[in-house]
Amino acid sequence: MKITSPTMVLDKVKCLKNIERMVKKAKEHNLEFRPHFKSHQSVEIGGWFRDFGVRAITVSSLRMADYFASGGFDDITVAFPANLNEMGLINDLAKKISLNLLVESAETAAALGRGLDSRVGVFIKVDTGYGRTGIAVRDFQTVERVADEIGKSPKLCFKGFLTHAGHSYSAKTTGEILAIHSKSVSQMFELKDFFVERWPDAEISVGDTPCCSLAADFPGVTEIRPGNFVFYDTMQLGLGSCTHDQIAVALACPVVAKHADRNSLVIHGGAVHLSKESLTAPTGERRFGLMVRLGEEGWSAPVPDALVVGLSQEHGVLSVPEDEFQRIKVGEIIGILPVHSCLTANLMRGYLTLSGEIVDHMQGRGVAM
Amino acid sequence: MKITSPTMVLDKVKCLKNIERMVKKAKEHNLEFRPHFKSHQSVEIGGWFRDFGVRAITVSSLRMADYFASGGFDDITVAFPANLNEMGLINDLAKKISLNLLVESAETAAALGRGLDSRVGVFIKVDTGYGRTGIAVRDFQTVERVADEIGKSPKLCFKGFLTHAGHSYSAKTTGEILAIHSKSVSQMFELKDFFVERWPDAEISVGDTPCCSLAADFPGVTEIRPGNFVFYDTMQLGLGSCTHDQIAVALACPVVAKHADRNSLVIHGGAVHLSKESLTAPTGERRFGLMVRLGEEGWSAPVPDALVVGLSQEHGVLSVPEDEFQRIKVGEIIGILPVHSCLTANLMRGYLTLSGEIVDHMQGRGVAM
Repeated sequence: MKITSPTMVLDKVKCLKNIERMVKKAKEHNLEFRPHFKSHQSVEIGGWFRDFGVRAITVSSLRMADYFASGGFDDITVAFPANLNEMGLINDLAKKISLNLLVESAETAAALGRGLDSRVGVFIKVDTGYGRTGIAVRDFQTVERVADEIGKSPKLCFKGFLTHAGHSYSAKTTGEILAIHSKSVSQMFELKDFFVERWPDAEISVGDTPCCSLAADFPGVTEIRPGNFVFYDTMQLGLGSCTHDQIAVALACPVVAKHADRNSLVIHGGAVHLSKESLTAPTGERRFGLMVRLGEEGWSAPVPDALVVGLSQEHGVLSVPEDEFQRIKVGEIIGILPVHSCLTANLMRGYLTLSGEIVDHMQGRGVAM
Repeated sequence: MKITSPTMVLDKVKCLKNIERMVKKAKEHNLEFRPHFKSHQSVEIGGWFRDFGVRAITVSSLRMADYFASGGFDDITVAFPANLNEMGLINDLAKKISLNLLVESAETAAALGRGLDSRVGVFIKVDTGYGRTGIAVRDFQTVERVADEIGKSPKLCFKGFLTHAGHSYSAKTTGEILAIHSKSVSQMFELKDFFVERWPDAEISVGDTPCCSLAADFPGVTEIRPGNFVFYDTMQLGLGSCTHDQIAVALACPVVAKHADRNSLVIHGGAVHLSKESLTAPTGERRFGLMVRLGEEGWSAPVPDALVVGLSQEHGVLSVPEDEFQRIKVGEIIGILPVHSCLTANLMRGYLTLSGEIVDHMQGRGVAM
């Protein structure tokens, strides 16, 4: 297939290897594997997980749960604080599938108890240091109050404690990521231990791609929920969670202009394709992706010092080394490894595999461009 | 209509006023008005412009040109370097409508000359300091070489010189914006003057929302092409291009969690809704939007010190003052004025007016949420 405009290219072989590696890791550590499907948002890619025996999944919205339920997934955790405005959709889903929700306040637990028609599983969301959502992991009193409220409703089935150690994304070294993981997991275990007589079977659910990729030890953990590892990206590369040849998606972009005075390439490929997610270089500049050379068989390693240095709505601006600048012609298609593949996939809403198949996306139009 | 999940709310009255104001300004200064439709990407909103007599438009991609051509617009400038890979689409469009393309190299001009079946208008893209695309405005030699190449093809009709003074977005004061505008316009005039005997009728096309909103003088300019002014946003507010009550869109978001230890609200409304476009506070932190109170009639002024301080894929995290924190309940719907309304609109792909009408978007699904 000839690429003429920005297109999300997927290397299925790399993607399948990423899935297989995490499936094996979960099995080796005796962990339930409930991958987060917000990264790919694709029933078809979900099917690739299913081929490895994955049945239970995580999503980030009720609408996404609905999409995957329609695609045949019947055991779904919505890893987002339960939205009381969507009681209708919650009830529709709870009737059809095994649905788990997240609760972090007694008020929300009580409101769910009143509004639910069917039984749902409930995790108490706790915060082990990320500071986004959840009850502070050592605030046993609040945890107990929420759990008591859950206990009052026959519609709410307490499952356990769930956290997302998203502060791993701010780590400066892989050692820091491992330290965050250890601390988060041991805090979760303390929490479980505190309530062990009351809830001996409480699950511990953790999961972020940096920790799940790098950690070799998951003491006391019941399940992991990483998502981004399915594709990885240059943010994960920067964190040390993956190698460049594990990155399974690249945005193919036509070069539309060259500027010799500054060795700059302009591509069709902007904020509406890549997203404005950025990494900050040690020198303070923002970077929006790494350049690769595209071929029939896939793409090269990132070209050293060839970086997306600016994005507007449709334009991407690259700074590239002199020899690369000379080599590339206007009209050529180059590849960009995105900073945050989940957001790029969300914008592109479809994938083109190296063998030319279109892979659909939840919000997709049956295209990859 | 009851809002239950993130929804792009459009205040049509404000939007119509924004359109009317710019239409009048163009008329007063005897300028052609060719608004950029990449901001709203909506044939329906395009119709509101048409009601004010607007016929000629600007877009940022050939696909967008195709969408608006299908919606009845027949005079379109694609303000993006011509993409030689899309010759088929260019020819399709050039057959149907009056199409203008941007060229900044002799090679591209020659390739267009070879590939075109019908006649198109061509602007030479020049750079007055933004440093993204275009020939440096004082590089008369390169301009002439490109123009000569354009002159060789009977399919290419030279229209004039076009620039986008996007460096206005980096200005620290409105005075700086006006200085950028003056300099950019006078450089464009020098360029035209240099070639005046050869092309006495060359047009000068400029247009970015900050300059077009603030400038009171457009000497020598033929047409303006602002886009964002149709909605404005908190970036424009920060630049001084608009007042808060001219911002015509807000993202309505359910509050899903509260954290009293840090006066923090968590909303359903994340990077896949608002985009990761940010503003940097004087203290260095990134900000992703301003909070407003939503009512039936529209929304309030931004609540002082109520800011979106973090975004992940679906979560938004707000820091709000104590009294606001106490007032807001989980389940309530609040409004966020986006940093960059074009990118938010591109993600939301539809609008809900205050009177409950759905307004469609090019990539839309007939919904606003």
